Amino acid sequence: MGILGAGAMGASHAHTLASWVPAARVGAVYDFDGARADQVAAGTGATALGSADELIGSAEVDAIVIASPDPLHAEQVLSCVAAGKPVLCEKPLAADESGSQQILDADDRFAAEHGRRLVQVGFMRRYDPAFVALRAHVAAGAIGTPRVVHCVHRNAVAHPAQTSDMNVTGSMVHELDIVPWLLDDPIAAITVRSPRAASEGVLLDPLVALIELAGGVLCTVEVFVNARYGYDVHCEVVGDHGTARLTPPAGIAVREPGSGVGVSGVQVTGDFVGRFADAYRIELASWVQAARRGVVDGPGARDGHLANVVAAAGVESLHTGARVEVAPFSLAHQ
Amino acid sequence: MGILGAGAMGASHAHTLASWVPAARVGAVYDFDGARADQVAAGTGATALGSADELIGSAEVDAIVIASPDPLHAEQVLSCVAAGKPVLCEKPLAADESGSQQILDADDRFAAEHGRRLVQVGFMRRYDPAFVALRAHVAAGAIGTPRVVHCVHRNAVAHPAQTSDMNVTGSMVHELDIVPWLLDDPIAAITVRSPRAASEGVLLDPLVALIELAGGVLCTVEVFVNARYGYDVHCEVVGDHGTARLTPPAGIAVREPGSGVGVSGVQVTGDFVGRFADAYRIELASWVQAARRGVVDGPGARDGHLANVVAAAGVESLHTGARVEVAPFSLAHQ
Amino acid sequence: MGILGAGAMGASHAHTLASWVPAARVGAVYDFDGARADQVAAGTGATALGSADELIGSAEVDAIVIASPDPLHAEQVLSCVAAGKPVLCEKPLAADESGSQQILDADDRFAAEHGRRLVQVGFMRRYDPAFVALRAHVAAGAIGTPRVVHCVHRNAVAHPAQTSDMNVTGSMVHELDIVPWLLDDPIAAITVRSPRAASEGVLLDPLVALIELAGGVLCTVEVFVNARYGYDVHCEVVGDHGTARLTPPAGIAVREPGSGVGVSGVQVTGDFVGRFADAYRIELASWVQAARRGVVDGPGARDGHLANVVAAAGVESLHTGARVEVAPFSLAHQ
Amino acid sequence: MGILGAGAMGASHAHTLASWVPAARVGAVYDFDGARADQVAAGTGATALGSADELIGSAEVDAIVIASPDPLHAEQVLSCVAAGKPVLCEKPLAADESGSQQILDADDRFAAEHGRRLVQVGFMRRYDPAFVALRAHVAAGAIGTPRVVHCVHRNAVAHPAQTSDMNVTGSMVHELDIVPWLLDDPIAAITVRSPRAASEGVLLDPLVALIELAGGVLCTVEVFVNARYGYDVHCEVVGDHGTARLTPPAGIAVREPGSGVGVSGVQVTGDFVGRFADAYRIELASWVQAARRGVVDGPGARDGHLANVVAAAGVESLHTGARVEVAPFSLAHQ
Repeated sequence: MGILGAGAMGASHAHTLASWVPAARVGAVYDFDGARADQVAAGTGATALGSADELIGSAEVDAIVIASPDPLHAEQVLSCVAAGKPVLCEKPLAADESGSQQILDADDRFAAEHGRRLVQVGFMRRYDPAFVALRAHVAAGAIGTPRVVHCVHRNAVAHPAQTSDMNVTGSMVHELDIVPWLLDDPIAAITVRSPRAASEGVLLDPLVALIELAGGVLCTVEVFVNARYGYDVHCEVVGDHGTARLTPPAGIAVREPGSGVGVSGVQVTGDFVGRFADAYRIELASWVQAARRGVVDGPGARDGHLANVVAAAGVESLHTGARVEVAPFSLAHQ
Repeated sequence: MGILGAGAMGASHAHTLASWVPAARVGAVYDFDGARADQVAAGTGATALGSADELIGSAEVDAIVIASPDPLHAEQVLSCVAAGKPVLCEKPLAADESGSQQILDADDRFAAEHGRRLVQVGFMRRYDPAFVALRAHVAAGAIGTPRVVHCVHRNAVAHPAQTSDMNVTGSMVHELDIVPWLLDDPIAAITVRSPRAASEGVLLDPLVALIELAGGVLCTVEVFVNARYGYDVHCEVVGDHGTARLTPPAGIAVREPGSGVGVSGVQVTGDFVGRFADAYRIELASWVQAARRGVVDGPGARDGHLANVVAAAGVESLHTGARVEVAPFSLAHQ
Repeated sequence: MGILGAGAMGASHAHTLASWVPAARVGAVYDFDGARADQVAAGTGATALGSADELIGSAEVDAIVIASPDPLHAEQVLSCVAAGKPVLCEKPLAADESGSQQILDADDRFAAEHGRRLVQVGFMRRYDPAFVALRAHVAAGAIGTPRVVHCVHRNAVAHPAQTSDMNVTGSMVHELDIVPWLLDDPIAAITVRSPRAASEGVLLDPLVALIELAGGVLCTVEVFVNARYGYDVHCEVVGDHGTARLTPPAGIAVREPGSGVGVSGVQVTGDFVGRFADAYRIELASWVQAARRGVVDGPGARDGHLANVVAAAGVESLHTGARVEVAPFSLAHQ
Repeated sequence: MGILGAGAMGASHAHTLASWVPAARVGAVYDFDGARADQVAAGTGATALGSADELIGSAEVDAIVIASPDPLHAEQVLSCVAAGKPVLCEKPLAADESGSQQILDADDRFAAEHGRRLVQVGFMRRYDPAFVALRAHVAAGAIGTPRVVHCVHRNAVAHPAQTSDMNVTGSMVHELDIVPWLLDDPIAAITVRSPRAASEGVLLDPLVALIELAGGVLCTVEVFVNARYGYDVHCEVVGDHGTARLTPPAGIAVREPGSGVGVSGVQVTGDFVGRFADAYRIELASWVQAARRGVVDGPGARDGHLANVVAAAGVESLHTGARVEVAPFSLAHQ
């Protein structure tokens, strides 16, 4: 395996592959920050290479994981496809719609010519045991017909470079993928609003979205990237005769003195690595196993592009205040 | 005290007054169903009278609780004001805006002439210890500046006569009052949507609303009057550095076999009487104490009318699909 | 009503009676600390009297609530019985077995002569809605035959004068009453142990008890009077096909930064007044209503004495390390 | 790897090794039920062999996982040691003290001769992320000095062949290992009792134990192997200034109609495979990695024997009713 990007996410993926995925060996790492690449390479017995192209082209590298900055995703994924190598790219698949459209086209062409696809996008929630159990519970009819979904997605602290648009394209994009997946129903329209903040002009955070699925289900989403107290993801599906929701990940609960009064409750994970450790492990293992069989059985280029299309609609809604319908593409091709 | 209406709510109020409110004695009851009135009267040592007018006019009756059908509220409240007697009217204060406007005008005139107000509306949540604690926690700055509120309001089964409009005017009206009260900030705009149901044309249920407060806070509301599993009210306020939310009322938790797999959790109350028993008790006691001092210190005619104005905007939004701003009245006079 | 003792408990009772109990009026207060008595008297429209005897003997006082220091209970309750006045005495009914035996004898004699009893002991948990619901759930057979009970009883901080014996006689005494009441089954044997503390010779805290009911059920109890983080009471009954347990009282839950990591959970009440506010209110109202009917329908002298008998066995066990069977009295007379 | 025993546990281990452990390949399976062995072998690309000896002796097998019936453990582990092959044996290490003593002696001898140990016992809880987090939290001093531990260990339904003694030696043995590990403090004495059951003479279930650690901490344990509603494991450590406890594993929570009233809570796993899926995966991976380095870094023969020694004391206590101190062995050699 080759790893592009040796930041927190790339390092985590490298470590997970080395520790937990039987069929994989981390052979090469590249990061524009050479020291960071060296460190990850050293920890996994890999070699740090001098460029992304060198890594993608290396005969030693059979498949690539991309965890580089979002603006680099499109070009790097396209290079992998050009090289005929399976690639798992962190979300978003590309920084904008046009990038993910190019990737989808390239993957489609490769599939037409070689009978297999190459691109998977890192929507790891689809592998989280709780999300999987939630989807199965709903699909089994245990809550009746779904009517409403409530999502909350909070980060402790956002990267200083985070923009309001990225709150949709880089954060809410998880909900834009997972809700259609949960209910097997694409998004038809989206409205995104932000509460007026004390200091206008800065990051619009939190955001609240009202999403309509093609089948009529309504979904509320809160994305809050500077929620301070931790990384916290909730999702409840409300059906005709019951509801089902995620529980927090296994861990410990505490009873301890608080501010003025005690508190009894669960500890909240600090970041996505802690919250979705299982999901990342299962995602990588499944992807490697599928790649060895010559297939992609996780979220593919079409899913990555579709989420980008909806995210672009969400950004438009955030700027205009209007409800934005999603282009026919998504419904026709789902 | 005189009680108008001897259905579930009126019977509950009569019983609560008789059992828990030192300064009150239930003296008279009226219901169009005489047998029902007799039963409540017998249980509280009161007399069943022959008409609402007789009760309101009775020299034995110092103050009136109205728990009759919604369409009768306006006329009965106006009669109480005309008789110069304090009245606690169940929500909604009137079935429509025009009714509550008349009541507000009458109460204003009475106040101008006699230096006191007479009308309180039964927004009992303002007396619920959990809601009170939530408001105090937010007001104390414990979560920083509030940004988002999430409300859920579910009934087990709606009355067969419930209409889609009543889901707003009779059910969501609780949120339309309590959210502004929680944050001390009036509602500026409301959007109400319903998921497309399997059988169009019937009750639009659940509803999802997106509410904007004048100060910029966003609020999502789910109202679901046929949620089946119980009567369940949630509210979370999300602030700059933490969140606070209601807990379920005290009761028991169980671990028991479920459908295929066991479940461990709290029992959900079946109706509002169980959920808000404390709140009703405190509401009535506070109202009686204030009435004896010649004041109204709970939600008054203005609050009841304001909630009706917003509810009417919500009904308009439900029918048109558009976001509806609330008339300047509310903000100017708040 | 007369109130003996104007500390936290007495003040709370006086306030509750004045605010919530229709049929009662607080007329007289006595405390050895005159200023404290004056304050409570002023807050409830009562008169501060010069001695306990004066209060008990006053023609203005129909019934007495005792919230004075434990060592004074026996003498004061006996005076009330001698005066023929209903008395609600805080737990423990007397500081030792001999005291409660005398009270039981006096109450028995009064009952034989006058056909009514006078003594109730302040086991307020019997009135707590959650404990009441727990008992009803078990009695209804919802968990099958009960087999095991787990109790936890924690205080934030103990009074500096608290002794190891008082951890049993004054704290665990609540469990010694409530568990037999929950299951309608008396205690047959008790073993009380303490973990070895860092500084031996000081307060033995926490305590762990293993209690055997006559019917064969086993019960574990943790009493921890300096648990720091709050006042926290748990109880789970484990039956043949399910379990049931108390939930915390209604209030708010928070998500906030914690020590190093965030926490999401319920706030814990600081003391018993907060935890059992409902229970105290219902207890006092029920007692007053029963007293007006000339009966005692709550926990009586026999219950108070029985709990003292078991507490004495518990103290013996704590000192000897041995399992102590409870004298035949309890089983024969239950 | 060779797998001895192809029941639920053995099949689960084989599947986990094949799916999740990079360095391992399942090569051989043996079960007295040949069909069962064939099935597991087919699912993992292994060969079903004709006897345990054949498997242990096979040149294709480098290490062995034992999940055969308890009475076979001792002989099979001893064979593995004789063959000089690393072995991970399900708990209990042997069906009785004498068996585990022999194993410890054999492992000691092998270590003296070859400088390495071979035996690990399947106390998988030591690898469960929640137990690991709990231990770290306590070790970090976050709750102050530990004073009390409360454990609950419930199975949905016991195997028909389960005996009362096995409730201690095969079930409670988990707590007998994990509590000393959590607090780094061996067990000094144990008292085990059973509530009197409706039908005496049958399985004594549930059991309640009071355990004393050498350092003075007290621990209560409930083991209930026919708890019906699910597989449920709880553990709370109570310290001087706070408590910490396990949370349930990640999954979903539901709100649904219950018996007469709704319920809102988490789903309980049906068995240990579901509850400890993570723990088994991490256990096997860690064991394989250590075995390849020529070491045992998990719970070894001494831990397995020590748990057996305490379990034997527990069985004695269950039969005699007496508190049983654990032989000096454990403390001297810990």
